[in-house]
Amino acid sequence: MLFHVRMDITLPYDLDPNRRAELVAAEKDRALELQKLGVWPHLWRVVGQYSNISVFDVPSNDELHAVLSSLPLWEFMRVEVTPLAQHPCDLAAQP
Amino acid sequence: MLFHVRMDITLPYDLDPNRRAELVAAEKDRALELQKLGVWPHLWRVVGQYSNISVFDVPSNDELHAVLSSLPLWEFMRVEVTPLAQHPCDLAAQP
Amino acid sequence: MLFHVRMDITLPYDLDPNRRAELVAAEKDRALELQKLGVWPHLWRVVGQYSNISVFDVPSNDELHAVLSSLPLWEFMRVEVTPLAQHPCDLAAQP
Amino acid sequence: MLFHVRMDITLPYDLDPNRRAELVAAEKDRALELQKLGVWPHLWRVVGQYSNISVFDVPSNDELHAVLSSLPLWEFMRVEVTPLAQHPCDLAAQP
Amino acid sequence: MLFHVRMDITLPYDLDPNRRAELVAAEKDRALELQKLGVWPHLWRVVGQYSNISVFDVPSNDELHAVLSSLPLWEFMRVEVTPLAQHPCDLAAQP
Amino acid sequence: MLFHVRMDITLPYDLDPNRRAELVAAEKDRALELQKLGVWPHLWRVVGQYSNISVFDVPSNDELHAVLSSLPLWEFMRVEVTPLAQHPCDLAAQP
Amino acid sequence: MLFHVRMDITLPYDLDPNRRAELVAAEKDRALELQKLGVWPHLWRVVGQYSNISVFDVPSNDELHAVLSSLPLWEFMRVEVTPLAQHPCDLAAQP
Amino acid sequence: MLFHVRMDITLPYDLDPNRRAELVAAEKDRALELQKLGVWPHLWRVVGQYSNISVFDVPSNDELHAVLSSLPLWEFMRVEVTPLAQHPCDLAAQP
Amino acid sequence: MLFHVRMDITLPYDLDPNRRAELVAAEKDRALELQKLGVWPHLWRVVGQYSNISVFDVPSNDELHAVLSSLPLWEFMRVEVTPLAQHPCDLAAQP
Amino acid sequence: MLFHVRMDITLPYDLDPNRRAELVAAEKDRALELQKLGVWPHLWRVVGQYSNISVFDVPSNDELHAVLSSLPLWEFMRVEVTPLAQHPCDLAAQP
Repeated sequence: MLFHVRMDITLPYDLDPNRRAELVAAEKDRALELQKLGVWPHLWRVVGQYSNISVFDVPSNDELHAVLSSLPLWEFMRVEVTPLAQHPCDLAAQP
Repeated sequence: MLFHVRMDITLPYDLDPNRRAELVAAEKDRALELQKLGVWPHLWRVVGQYSNISVFDVPSNDELHAVLSSLPLWEFMRVEVTPLAQHPCDLAAQP
Repeated sequence: MLFHVRMDITLPYDLDPNRRAELVAAEKDRALELQKLGVWPHLWRVVGQYSNISVFDVPSNDELHAVLSSLPLWEFMRVEVTPLAQHPCDLAAQP
Repeated sequence: MLFHVRMDITLPYDLDPNRRAELVAAEKDRALELQKLGVWPHLWRVVGQYSNISVFDVPSNDELHAVLSSLPLWEFMRVEVTPLAQHPCDLAAQP
Repeated sequence: MLFHVRMDITLPYDLDPNRRAELVAAEKDRALELQKLGVWPHLWRVVGQYSNISVFDVPSNDELHAVLSSLPLWEFMRVEVTPLAQHPCDLAAQP
Repeated sequence: MLFHVRMDITLPYDLDPNRRAELVAAEKDRALELQKLGVWPHLWRVVGQYSNISVFDVPSNDELHAVLSSLPLWEFMRVEVTPLAQHPCDLAAQP
Repeated sequence: MLFHVRMDITLPYDLDPNRRAELVAAEKDRALELQKLGVWPHLWRVVGQYSNISVFDVPSNDELHAVLSSLPLWEFMRVEVTPLAQHPCDLAAQP
Repeated sequence: MLFHVRMDITLPYDLDPNRRAELVAAEKDRALELQKLGVWPHLWRVVGQYSNISVFDVPSNDELHAVLSSLPLWEFMRVEVTPLAQHPCDLAAQP
Repeated sequence: MLFHVRMDITLPYDLDPNRRAELVAAEKDRALELQKLGVWPHLWRVVGQYSNISVFDVPSNDELHAVLSSLPLWEFMRVEVTPLAQHPCDLAAQP
Repeated sequence: MLFHVRMDITLPYDLDPNRRAELVAAEKDRALELQKLGVWPHLWRVVGQYSNISVFDVPSNDELHAVLSSLPLWEFMRVEVTPLAQHPCDLAAQP
């Protein structure tokens, strides 16, 4: 089941640089892990913003919340979730 | 080059039913054609809305506008375009 | 799987009264049917507005879109969907 | 009398961790207590956000404000209240 | 129980003048009636707008919706309801 | 002359508790004083928010600004002022 | 007593041209009359918009509403009123 | 003197096609004329929208309003004007 | 050339009181100076807000930016500029 | 390929003055360098705001993000990107 997710990150400018580096590295590790698992099939950078637009593939709403709230930068994100359905004009949906 | 596109369709409720059916059928044909050409790699329905979230893959801004304004429902759409870049945590971007 | 749905209805003031009555009656029939099926467990009127706040229980995003777009007043609704997860403070979630 | 309530929590990132843990634990205790009393019949997590959507059942506006402002996280919440009425299509409202 | 209500009226400019006059007269009659009943204790014009800010005194949310939706201009109103509670600094609330 | 005033209070969470208590007590004293003077005829709590909706009765705009900016919590308020006029459907305005 | 008023005019594009010309001419006559009376001391065009920003000088809120609702284009305006007070840095306010 | 101008065009879908074609052709003629005069140095299409982002070079605010309101599509535009100044980092502004 | 300017001031609540007093005094001096020079012909307080609505009279956009950014409170202001033109109904514009 | 970019800068008021001066100087150096390279053909100050409106000319979305995120003030900017296409009324686009 697919969900469109936009994440906007705001790190406090006076965050300890080591803490920041750790968080960003941990976020990358977790993102790669979730991609390898097939849970996070699309991840794009929004040009000009510390934001991403993503698509998640999860079996349930509960699973999606568990995944998102497991992200190391979770505390510094504004997240917006939009449920997606198959579009009747999707090539893959044609008989 | 990838662009995130959201389209919200509003058809006047008193539009002639034949005109409506023609427009919707033509839109579907054009959407399938653009998908086959690889220009419109992702097309999802937004749950609960007469809207889609899409990703387009085009060589330029001019090309994207030409494609979007060629859609049969163009006149009845509100379109929002967001340029996408490769994300540093994208699995495909890793060395 | 639960989804929070808000529907705001706008019927054109000059809609044919018979057409209006038919639509409203059909909407009611469909709403009752979906409640009996367990798909639409909560349905409340927003005080002072021609709107409702509802909770739907469906197995997937696709199913939710199919249900919503089957509503007789679908064409006259603005619908906003918010996916819900179990809350860690929910009494029913306690061990 | 039912009220739809949305709560968005924002805890300062540099809040003392002990203070934070105490607040969150106290909030959970109070939430469970209010659910047992029947005052807070529905409590859901908004997917991807440190927010909940709830329904409260209270005899009056004054009582609702007293309950909400008694929550341990009250100071860190943005709360939005929407009064609910019985919907004419509610199955339970049919004769 | 008090509720703050704001009503913004929009009458179509090409509404039949007789229909308009009837609606406005009926609205006035109903408003006076509800004031006499004590249900609508405050009614003010917003300067420069075809809007009012009002306070209603009703025993329940259901009653409030019944009253508002009984207004002759109901179909042409945008209504926003805000529940009110006694303020701790209200002179009438002092011991 | 009546004005509708909405005040939203935001006190910094790390404000010194004594300073906070002093400010809140001073605010209450001033609010009671202004009510006794007839300047602040209505004061209601917005349910679920650290906000009030009020009506002020003052001879002029200058007087209203002087009164509002004399409030001890002035520095921590967002204030929105809406001028009110007599409504033609007001019972008290009937001949 | 001064009030800042912004008026945004929207005339339906298919309004009868004679009706339009009459309305615009009547609006101008009324605007000139109110300026001569000293009620409308400032009237500026917002560049690029069918809008004006004005200052009115009236003895009361009721008078302001009476003046604004007497404008021939009243039905086609969105009006926003902001009460003004003397500024402590105003040269004319210095001792 | 430079001004940033964004124009969003909305033509009624049921506008007479001949009238539409005339308006669009006249708009193009006027736009070309103003560019030749040096008044409209930049004109870009916003991708995916019936909108443009432009820069105008005019001697005064009055002149800008005269130019904008002379456009054949003026009645169907929403226009937003932002005054521009030389930027201290502009290469052309360096000594 | 006239410009409508709205300034909203936000001083950090924990700003050093001496620094605050100096800034506010310097702002007043500069405001009086600019009024004497005829650059700032109108300056009004927005009732209930730490904001002003002003009209500036300057020969160019560059001059306006220079004037505004010279204000001692510049760093603490949100400024919104709207270019003004002579209104065709302005009494002073009549032949 | 052209992109419209608006940057709004917010520097914390208590940023170390030396750090601030360094950042602003480095930003200017980088801006001049990018202009010399032809990447940043237009750069204007928004009157009354610590903001600029710019046009970038880059071969791809990825390149644009790389350029923007290389700016020394990147961390303190809110950036909004709008893709531009050639306008059919652009003088340079005429045959």
